[in-house]
Parts: sequence; structure tokens; C-alpha cells
Amino acid sequence: MTQKKYLVTGAAGFIGSTLVDRLLRDGHTVVGIDNFSTGQRRFLEKAQPTPRFTLIEIDLLHGNIVPHFAGVDGVFHLAANADVRFGTDAPRRDLEQNTIVTHNVLEAMRQNGVTQIGFSSTGSVYGEARQIPTPEDGPFPIQTSLYGASKLAGEGLIAAYAEGFGFKACIFRFVSVLGPRYTHGHVFDFVQQLKKDPANLRVLGNGKQRKSYMHVDDCVDAILLATEKSTEKVGVFNLGCPEYCEVNDSIGWITARMGLNPQLNYTGGERGWIGDNPFIFLDVQKILALGWNPKYTIRQGVEATVDFLTNNLWVYEARS
Amino acid sequence: MTQKKYLVTGAAGFIGSTLVDRLLRDGHTVVGIDNFSTGQRRFLEKAQPTPRFTLIEIDLLHGNIVPHFAGVDGVFHLAANADVRFGTDAPRRDLEQNTIVTHNVLEAMRQNGVTQIGFSSTGSVYGEARQIPTPEDGPFPIQTSLYGASKLAGEGLIAAYAEGFGFKACIFRFVSVLGPRYTHGHVFDFVQQLKKDPANLRVLGNGKQRKSYMHVDDCVDAILLATEKSTEKVGVFNLGCPEYCEVNDSIGWITARMGLNPQLNYTGGERGWIGDNPFIFLDVQKILALGWNPKYTIRQGVEATVDFLTNNLWVYEARS
Repeated sequence: MTQKKYLVTGAAGFIGSTLVDRLLRDGHTVVGIDNFSTGQRRFLEKAQPTPRFTLIEIDLLHGNIVPHFAGVDGVFHLAANADVRFGTDAPRRDLEQNTIVTHNVLEAMRQNGVTQIGFSSTGSVYGEARQIPTPEDGPFPIQTSLYGASKLAGEGLIAAYAEGFGFKACIFRFVSVLGPRYTHGHVFDFVQQLKKDPANLRVLGNGKQRKSYMHVDDCVDAILLATEKSTEKVGVFNLGCPEYCEVNDSIGWITARMGLNPQLNYTGGERGWIGDNPFIFLDVQKILALGWNPKYTIRQGVEATVDFLTNNLWVYEARS
Repeated sequence: MTQKKYLVTGAAGFIGSTLVDRLLRDGHTVVGIDNFSTGQRRFLEKAQPTPRFTLIEIDLLHGNIVPHFAGVDGVFHLAANADVRFGTDAPRRDLEQNTIVTHNVLEAMRQNGVTQIGFSSTGSVYGEARQIPTPEDGPFPIQTSLYGASKLAGEGLIAAYAEGFGFKACIFRFVSVLGPRYTHGHVFDFVQQLKKDPANLRVLGNGKQRKSYMHVDDCVDAILLATEKSTEKVGVFNLGCPEYCEVNDSIGWITARMGLNPQLNYTGGERGWIGDNPFIFLDVQKILALGWNPKYTIRQGVEATVDFLTNNLWVYEARS
């Protein structure tokens, strides 16, 4: 494999730091950018000693990021506000962090002649999909969250840069990602609750929401595979396990792994929050056809996450 | 009909001023907002003397627009950078004028408890559509222009506000609009060229691009009809003539109307510019089913535009 120089935004994040470690392991040079708003310095402890790794602490919204893109072969743009919930509390946050920042990254690339980009989008762009499992080219959806809308806007900008400026892009529409360094989402919340009170668990919605998940190692495998093999100007790839579970299944796996049997208190309703989607299941035939071979079931991903969290309770302090 | 107070952004624009005149004719109170970056004061000459009309000259990107939305029953958000071409010359313009400004308008509405919005999107959000005529819920498209991407982002924000804040929205995906007060697009360019040199006409592309158009009066009819009759939380409507023509057809109608027979000089290629779409034809069954009854053919729209331009050559000075 040719050694390249990659720039990773959100390098200290969950997926970002896992990707950085993988790129370094494969012999590449990596420039990591993070503003540490949600990124964790400890996630870069493995990368930091490597001479091929440079960390740039800068804000992608307001900082002068252009010089840092010089000489880069490809960009993985993973920096984002990654929480689909609570968008209505701060309506400008998703626009700034997920749309305007993506524009800034594209401009920094264009001004440096960098044209290869991988982008972490989301299955949330499908809103409440009419077709399940949802393919990449199913019915043109209506957005249901500021998060999904802001990511779709990022996708659109990237595709327009591909058309207008000769970029080549891979856009990844993830389900929720699980595994080591996981720092937000339902497993995070449930483990936190159970550490405080092992006898009770509050569940948003009725627990019957059906969701798909994937392990971060499978996610990074897919990102690198598509980056290498996709021949499309703009390749859009769903990424997720080829299975789904109910939130109640996940609760069973979490509590079993922790050896607990709490009382479950449901807030009720088929949606856990405004914009919650009661059924997320993506058609991943396209990435499977490219040769992707996921190694973890959803249950294994949930269990790996519980193990990470219970062994790294510091992440709760770091994120509070 | 109940008399209401409407706020129209882009009130001095082509479609905006036509809508303002119609709302005033129907007895409504209208607050018009424009920054006159491309809007024309002369387009408001009919509206200005009406006591029910108030003009606010303010910039939607940077101004404090919130107070002006007080007591408004509904908003028609038409302000935009409306030119699909040249987006690559100023990559941030579409993002600012079409996406961030839409966010600002939505926030001003939310802070005033205004929840009804009509939005001028574009058929350009379909990119190069795989399904023609293109329905509103056809295959999830890949964006091909910064303009389309920025309008799709605006659509997404509006839909997310509908879900999160109880807004009710009508989103209009226009083809190109023709008729009195038309100030950009191919008829504008062709008439301008022919006024300078009646013997020669430079045509971007090969002239075989197939496009649909609609007359501004039909467009305003459809906007008002959908606003009144749509029962969807987020109603998306294609608007355009149920027919298309070749650019060469349009050239024939323009030159015949002007009594000219110029030499045609094609730049060649099936696209006139980066992001140009060689075939635009929207499926308008949804708005037709609501009772819309367009009164003009494409040819009649082109001829009305030629008549307006040749009788109002001042618009060329105003836009230069």
C-alpha cells in the first residue's frame, strides 16, 4: 500500500481517534485536527508518540485552518456535533458544526488542491424512511431532525464541490456506532444510570424502537475499504450491521453484561425524543458488495461498549 | 377569505414582488423585506402606495430581523441568491444567502411564534435526476450545484423546524420562472445579446438542453393554492409547466418575437455550464391534483418575457 498523508478532523473523537490509530498502524502520516469540545486527549495517547502524527488544536468554525491542509493527499472529515438529540435546544449548533464547518473544510481543501474526502454523514438523513431496509437511493426523504438536516447539507456541499471542483468523495451514512471510546448514545446513558442506581433504569420511549448499530472497528474497515475501492465521483455508502434490534434487546444485553436486573421505567411513546426514529435499518448491500466483512454482531458491539465504559468511568466525568 | 398579515422576504425580487402585489390585491397586509442586492425598487412601485404594505430594508444574513416578524401569520421566504450558475466563483455565497439566511428566518419565526412558511426551493435539488418527469419522492439525488445544495439545506432546516417546533411548511421546487420582472436566466441573456448585436447569438452548450419553465403568474397561483390547501406538515411541491422545450425552441420563439434571424454560435457540449442539467422536467401531478390550473404555455411565458425585457431595458442597467 502506498503511504499517504491524511488529515482527520475530529481526530480526538470516538471514530476519529480509532481511524487515526488505524492509519498510523498502516504506515500513513496523519494530521489530526480537533478543538477538544467533545474530543478526548486520552483517545490520542496511542497516536501522540508516533512521529508520523501531528495534532493541530484548532476550531474548524472560526480558526484559520487553510495552512494545515497543505500537502495532504486525502481528508477524513469526522468533526461534528454528533448528538442527534437536543437539537431543538440549540438550533444553530448543528448548522454551524455540521454544515458551515464542512464548507470551511471543503474550502481549505480547494485552496490547497486537495480533492479526496471521506465524510461521516448519518442514517438520520433518511428521516422516517418509507423503505426499510433503506437503500442509498430510496425515496427522497423529508428531514425530521436538525442533526440530519445539517448532515444532509454537508453531503450536498461535498457533492457540489465534486461536480464543480473535481473532488472525489465517499459519503458514509452511519447507523449508531458502538465499541471502545464510545462517549454518547443509549448505551452510554444506560450504563451511567445503572452505575448510579443499579436497581432502576429510565428508558426514553416504549423500548420498542428498532435500531441498527455497528462496531467502530467494522466502521473504520468500511471507511478505508470504500476510500480505496470506490470508483464513483460521489460514492454514498450506508454503513451498519445487516441486522437490527429493539432497544429492549439492547437493555437485556447491557444489564446481563453488568450482572444487574433493574426495574425498567419507560417514558412511553414510540419515539424517545423529538426527531427520534422508531425504526432505523439501512440496506448495506452496496458496501458488502465492495467486499466489506463486518466482524461484530450488534450484541457483541453492545457488550464491547459496556466493557469499555465500565472500565473507563473517567469518560463520564470528561463528558459532564 | 380571511385577511392575514404576511411577511415576504425578497419582496423586491421577481417572484417576491409579484406575490406581494397579489397578496395586497387579495386584501392582506404585507411586510416586505429586501436588502436590494438584486431586488428592484421599481418592482414595488405598485405596492408602495398601499397602506397595508410596509417595506423593511434589511439584510437577512447580518441584520436584526427578529422584531419584524412580530404578529405575522405566515412567511413566504423567497429571498435567495437565485442564480444557479457561477456558484463556483463564490463558493460561500449560496451557503450564506440560501442556507444560513433560511436558518435566520426560521429562528426569527420561532422567536415570534410564527409557524407557517412557504419556501422557494428549486428543481435543481434533483441534480441530474434519474427519473424524468421527476416526482417529489423519486430517488434520493446527488447534488450537482452549490445552488441546489444550498436550497436542499434550506429545505432540510425547514422540515426539521416543522418536526421540532410544530411549523407547517410548503416547499416549492421550481423550474425556471418567466414573465414580467424577470431579471436573470437564458431569455435575459439572449435578449441582451440580441439588443447589442442582432446578427449573432452565443449559446452556452449545444442548444439541445431540455428544460421546463413556468410563468410567474402561474407560479404565484400555485404558491397561494398550496398554502391554502396543503394539509401536510411539510408539503413538497414541484412547480413547472407540464411540458418542456429545447433551448433551441426557446431561441426560435425569442428571435421570432423580436423579428430577428441571428447566426447561432454554440459553445458546444451538452451542458451550458458546470452543474448545468441537460434535462429538467418535473412531475407536477401533485400540485395539479390540488387544483392548480396553469394558464400559460412555455412559449407564451417566453414571449411575455421578451415583451417585458424589450419594453424595460432599464433592468439591464439595474443588474449590470
